[in-house]
This record gives sequence, structure tokens and C-alpha cells, in this order.
Amino acid sequence: MKLNGNFQNLEQSYLFVTIAKKVNEYTAAHPENNLIRMGIGDVTLPLAPVVIQAMHKATDEMAKKETFRGYSPDSSGYPFLREAIAGYYQSLGVSVEPGEVFVGDGAKSDVGNIVDIFDNANTILVPDPVYPVYVDTNVMAGRKIAYADANMENGFLPMPEAGQSADIVYICSPNNPTGAVYNRDQLQAWVDYALEREAVILFDAAYESFVSPGLPRSIFEIPGAERCAIEFCSLSKTAGFTGMRCGYTVIKKELAFEGVSVAKLWERRQGSKFNGVNYVTQRAAEAVFSPEGIRQTQEAVAYYKGNAQVMVQAMRDMGLWFTGGENSPYVWFQCPEGKSGWEYFDYLLNEKEIVGTPGEGFGKNGGGCMRLSAFGDTEKTKEAMERIKRG
Amino acid sequence: MKLNGNFQNLEQSYLFVTIAKKVNEYTAAHPENNLIRMGIGDVTLPLAPVVIQAMHKATDEMAKKETFRGYSPDSSGYPFLREAIAGYYQSLGVSVEPGEVFVGDGAKSDVGNIVDIFDNANTILVPDPVYPVYVDTNVMAGRKIAYADANMENGFLPMPEAGQSADIVYICSPNNPTGAVYNRDQLQAWVDYALEREAVILFDAAYESFVSPGLPRSIFEIPGAERCAIEFCSLSKTAGFTGMRCGYTVIKKELAFEGVSVAKLWERRQGSKFNGVNYVTQRAAEAVFSPEGIRQTQEAVAYYKGNAQVMVQAMRDMGLWFTGGENSPYVWFQCPEGKSGWEYFDYLLNEKEIVGTPGEGFGKNGGGCMRLSAFGDTEKTKEAMERIKRG
Repeated sequence: MKLNGNFQNLEQSYLFVTIAKKVNEYTAAHPENNLIRMGIGDVTLPLAPVVIQAMHKATDEMAKKETFRGYSPDSSGYPFLREAIAGYYQSLGVSVEPGEVFVGDGAKSDVGNIVDIFDNANTILVPDPVYPVYVDTNVMAGRKIAYADANMENGFLPMPEAGQSADIVYICSPNNPTGAVYNRDQLQAWVDYALEREAVILFDAAYESFVSPGLPRSIFEIPGAERCAIEFCSLSKTAGFTGMRCGYTVIKKELAFEGVSVAKLWERRQGSKFNGVNYVTQRAAEAVFSPEGIRQTQEAVAYYKGNAQVMVQAMRDMGLWFTGGENSPYVWFQCPEGKSGWEYFDYLLNEKEIVGTPGEGFGKNGGGCMRLSAFGDTEKTKEAMERIKRG
Repeated sequence: MKLNGNFQNLEQSYLFVTIAKKVNEYTAAHPENNLIRMGIGDVTLPLAPVVIQAMHKATDEMAKKETFRGYSPDSSGYPFLREAIAGYYQSLGVSVEPGEVFVGDGAKSDVGNIVDIFDNANTILVPDPVYPVYVDTNVMAGRKIAYADANMENGFLPMPEAGQSADIVYICSPNNPTGAVYNRDQLQAWVDYALEREAVILFDAAYESFVSPGLPRSIFEIPGAERCAIEFCSLSKTAGFTGMRCGYTVIKKELAFEGVSVAKLWERRQGSKFNGVNYVTQRAAEAVFSPEGIRQTQEAVAYYKGNAQVMVQAMRDMGLWFTGGENSPYVWFQCPEGKSGWEYFDYLLNEKEIVGTPGEGFGKNGGGCMRLSAFGDTEKTKEAMERIKRG
């Protein structure tokens, strides 16, 4: 038996391991520390009351024979949830049918598993820096990967280049880790590029709930996207579902290559390797899309966006170059005095008792940058910014 | 962009679609019918009280900032659950460490996704008839598949054959659909075969809770299995978790090929394409393995096994050749009068108002057989057997 040798080509991910080690060393040496953790990409506010109610109700259904639910009727989700998500798209002015919504256990799973339905000979285009899952899942399949350089010159928003050939294009907007967001014209350029080359865009919209009016939340706001794009969404940041595990993938019925429906292939993949999302979680997700659910979850998003504003103001006060913060829970900035991300990480940890994430962890173009997260407490975020500003 | 062409080689699964169509036609023509559904592989009893309590408690934790849980610390499960599962193995007399247990969202996902860690050039050996996921997930990867014939002569328990070369061997015991269970000597023969050829056994133990004392529940009861086998388990049938989605995969640290740890590869695969099981579900699963949880869930298993006994007795009364029923929720029998599975399906539906599953749906060797499920109501199971026996 031969194991998949492509796994040997994966870069070992030392980023969070190294961070944890350095933080543990610091706290061991300073037991009375006052550390503020801004490295995490995880939410901290509890689930919305309307979601909790739905969970208790669904749990009670599972306790009685008459209302007990076994297997989902479909691995792609109960009709009640697919309809609720289609309704959410309608509220954004985007036409999506329930049958075009595929409920899964999170954007990470769907973004990772989607590679199954593509031929291994395709060339992949991935922005650098970026969320490591895009690269790792394609390395596992032995695919050729090209990089689109994101940097200060293009505001960490790379655009299509004439000579660049690609079959599968990953776009993450708002971007993790940079927080940069594409505008309508920029996304139209990517859609035009994909249509011209018969490429597919994998659009990761996990942070769409942080986008302010005027900028696109969905790739399907862009004409032509229905014929070239797959969109991945998550309730992790929208509704604090990181521990709940629920997301959804949207594939329009127009999306086909050589006459083969992409949605049908994904449905077949999921039907063979997935068995649907937990019933209680599907009811919880349905509650997120109720009017009261949207109101309550947007309160939490507004709280995190308030933290991001505190960080944005501090960046401006210090005159640091940055992206994100306006439409994203992340602020991505150039480290002062030409420091590397790791040098500045050590400085922040040892001198300011703040934990960030060095940009080097997200790709070569992340060097010299730092990511700070707005998912913490407002008072602590303010305190952290004061500490940094004091220099 | 090229789609994965292997998907075109999948056989269209018309089985359950055709069954649903026939049943719908019958109920439309006979609105006052008294149909007994024995085709389903889904549980019908509600979750155990101790599980429901754990779910309410965990839901309340998610409602408060102080006790809220975000991402799992590890995509392979919280330590509390991995320890509980290791403890369950200990109660079977099998030594498994918590770090050798990988919690996932169901055996179907894990059995399907495990193919990622193997090279595509491996030859797969799959019993026929069998659960279709083994074949489909390997067809998607473009692998060569060989079949091990299961039939009346070998009691639907194929054994290794001298000339048969295979790198990856699927074993499902108790088998779905036949209900046949390997004994210790038979599993030892498979382990010896795998060790000799440096093959890996993928052991699907989803129905292990139906196995009576004296027969192996885990492949790791067999000496040498730690060096050649991966075991897949599920709480779906053990604890009625079909709508909850929780299973676990056990890979012993001894399992390695050319010095590469299989567990490490699986961990890396899951770390990139999975983000852990829902927190409430992990707490629910923990409750299953508590002493009270084991008592309560075994009550449900005993109820289903009681139904299976009713079916077994009916098979004996009618003198039909059958397997399963003793250590399995399925009874698999030869249709009377040389009927094909589909002919007998039509007869049972139209003359007896009983829905079964024709064996043809599980592979060519399933022809002329029928699967009946014990997951229904006891009174209805008795009534169904009376109807069949009346002839």
C-alpha cells in the first residue's frame, strides 16, 4: 500500500505552534501577566438568544419518538434552512434558489472538499498572503499552484494579469488575513477573466457579514458570476458558529463545464462522503436568518466592528500603513521601523503584553506585516491600542 | 477548467429513488394503506435522556460569554470525548489511547474522506454486495477496484484468496446490507493477509453495538491489526445519532507505511479540510459513554435486536435461507420461489404492504436477495412477519 506522497510536499505549519510556545514561555516567566490576545480568529461573544432558544427546542424534539429526527432527508440540508438562506440572498438583492444552496459543516470543509470535483491537471491561482487551506488542499491533490502577489502597491488586492493562465482562482473577500475587500469593478474584472478563460472562481465569503453597504457581499452581485463562480459562506463569524459548525456553498444552476453541471457533481460528492449537518444546528442556523436572528447577530458583528474601528484609529494615529478594519474583523499593518513580523511579534509580546499574528505565517508577501483580530473585548482592545501608541 | 472525469464512471444510484417512486405510486393509489416500512437503515427511537440532558447543558454553556465555546482546540475532538471513547475500548479489553481516537462527523464522512491519504495507484478490494460508499469514493479517485464475492456458499463472508492482490481492503462487520459478522479466526485471516502484503484494512464497525459477546466488536481485538487496520465507528446506530452526526476513527500509532505515520497523515487531512464536530454534539457523545449513557443506549439496541429476533424466527418458520439478525439490525434473505429482489419487492409492496430493500441495490451478488431492517416498531415488525408468513 502506498500513501499519498503529495502530503510530503506540504509545508509544515509552525505558525500557531510557534506562537503558542512563545506565549507559554512568556506566561510561565510572568505568572502575573496582563496579556491581551489579539492573535485569534475565533469569536468570543455567546450565541444569540434566538439561536439558543432554537437549540433547546430542537433538542426537545430529539427527545420524543414523535418528533425525533434521524438522517437529513438530503445531505445538502433541510428545505427549511435552504429556503432561509435563499431568502437571505434575496435581502441582498441576489437571486438564489433553495436548490442552489448546499448546507455543510463549515466553509473550511467545503472549500477543502470542493477540490474533489476538479481534475488534478488544473492550474490553481492563489493570492499570497492567504488562508493556508487553499494551498494545502491542492498540494494534497498534487496540483500546480501559481500565486497572485498581494502587496502594499495593490492594497493587498491582486488583479488578473494578462499573461497569467489559471483554471481555478481562489478569491477571499474580505480577505483573511489582510482584511482587504474587493469593490464591484475589481470583482467584475475577475469574473470577466474567468469567463474568458473558462476558469472557475472559488469565492470565499466567510467574512461577508462585516462588509458595509456599497461593497459587494456576494460574488453573485456581479453579472456573469453565475457562470463561473462558486461561493462559500459560513455562520462562524456571521453568528458566532465557530463551535457549532455550519456553512453553505452556493452553486448556480448555470455553472457547467462541457455540459456537466457543477452543482450535480458537488451533490454527488457530498452524497457519498457527507451525511448532512446536525439537526439541532440546522434549526439554530434557521433562527439566525429570522428577522430577530439577523438583528441579534448583527449586534455582535457591530461590536466586533467597533473594536476594529478602535484599531483603525490607532493605526492612523501612529501613521502606520494598514488594510482591513473597515469591512473586516482583521487589521493588517506594516510593522514599524522595518521590523519583520516575527521581530514585531516578539516586541509586542515582551514589551506590550499583546499577542498578534506575524504576517510571515500566511505567505512570503506577508513578511514585515502583522495581523490583529477584533474578536476580543472592547475594553481590552482599547487598552492594547493605548499600549502600542505609548511606544 | 476540467472537472474530475472519474465522476462520469460512477453508477447512477437508482435504488432508493426507484423504491421511493414505487412506494409513492402505491400510496397514491391506496390512500387508506397500512404500509410497514422496513427498507430504512435509519433509527426511530429518540435520543437517550442522559444525552438530551447533556445537550441542554451544553446549549446553556453556549449562551454565556464565560462558558461559550468556539473552535474545537483540535479538529480531531475535545480531550473529554477522546478519553471517553478510549475508555469504552478499554471496557472491550482493547487498548486504545485518546490520541489514537479521531472524532469526526460520522463514519460515512471518515470512510469517504480517508481515501485522500492513499495513493491513487493502489488496488482496492471491496466485498460484493456492500454499502455503496466504498466503491463510489474510490471511483471518484479513479482507482482500480476488485471485488470479493460474498454469497450463500461463504455465508456472505468472503475470505482472502491466495491469488488476490489488494492494497486496501474494505471490511464491514456486521455487514451492511447482509448482517453477516466475521468471527475471530476469520478476521485473523484477513489481518494475516494484510500484514503479509503490506495492505491496509479499512474496518467499518458502524454496527458494532449489535454484536453479541463471543464475536469481535473491534478489529483491534485481533493481534497484528494495530499494524494494518483503521477502524471506523459511529454513534448513529449505537446511540441513535443519525441526525446528530458523530463518529470516530481509530488509528493506532503502530500503523505506518515506509516510516510515515498514517495517523499523522489523517490528522493533517482533517486539519486542512475539517474543523471539528459541533460542541453540543461532542458533549452529547461524551454522555453516551457514561455508565448511565451506556445503559440507556443499550436499551434501544436491545429493542432493535428484539425486532431482529422476530424476523429471524419468521425466516426459520418459513424455511428461508438468511444471514444477519443475530448480531445486526438487518436480516438478509433469499427471496422465495427464485424471485429476483425487485420481483419480491413488488410482491411485498403490492400484496403485503411491506417495504423492503432489494439486494440488487448493493452489488451483483445481491441479486435474488432482500434486506429488511429492524429499526422500526416492534408491533409493526410482528405484524409484517405475520403477513409474510400467511403467504
